[in-house]
Amino acid sequence: MYGMLGRMKAAPGKREELLALLLESSADMPGCLSYIVAKDATDPDAIWITEAWDSKEHHDASLKLPQVQAAIAKARPLIAGFDSRAETQPVGGIGLGRVPAPKG
Amino acid sequence: MYGMLGRMKAAPGKREELLALLLESSADMPGCLSYIVAKDATDPDAIWITEAWDSKEHHDASLKLPQVQAAIAKARPLIAGFDSRAETQPVGGIGLGRVPAPKG
Repeated sequence: MYGMLGRMKAAPGKREELLALLLESSADMPGCLSYIVAKDATDPDAIWITEAWDSKEHHDASLKLPQVQAAIAKARPLIAGFDSRAETQPVGGIGLGRVPAPKG
Repeated sequence: MYGMLGRMKAAPGKREELLALLLESSADMPGCLSYIVAKDATDPDAIWITEAWDSKEHHDASLKLPQVQAAIAKARPLIAGFDSRAETQPVGGIGLGRVPAPKG
């Protein structure tokens, strides 16, 4: 599995619009096991995105999907920046559409 | 919905053991919509945990479950620290066991 997470800062007042775009564009992405969009509880402009994929190749391919390309173009003027970005290797848990990975 | 995410540092060499404990103890938590445990891709001791719950009350109640209490006791000596912690309000996406929240 491949994962990533990070915090996106919306331009002031644009968080709701950006959230809607992220949700619309993230349906029907092959190999996507989890893609959760959340408001930061303390920063009124910040959004957290956490993702888990079957592989990095599935993630990279998603960026070429027509609905994702269209959303990126629409989202660009609504984004002020990114921070707290990390790449991960998901191991298991709840909400991955699969049983937890073997332990040990 | 209520969410949280953060990075946990395992004591040196203890990441696999800590991952196994986290996965074992996180099954069957009422109100848990997503609980994903992942290895940091660059730090060999770091683990990311990302969570989404029906409510903060469900999260808080989970800490009192017997299997969670037992895991916390076993995990304590394996944990070196925490950082990058954030509270969130999940809005929607894939892997929440529910349809995306209404937009706008």
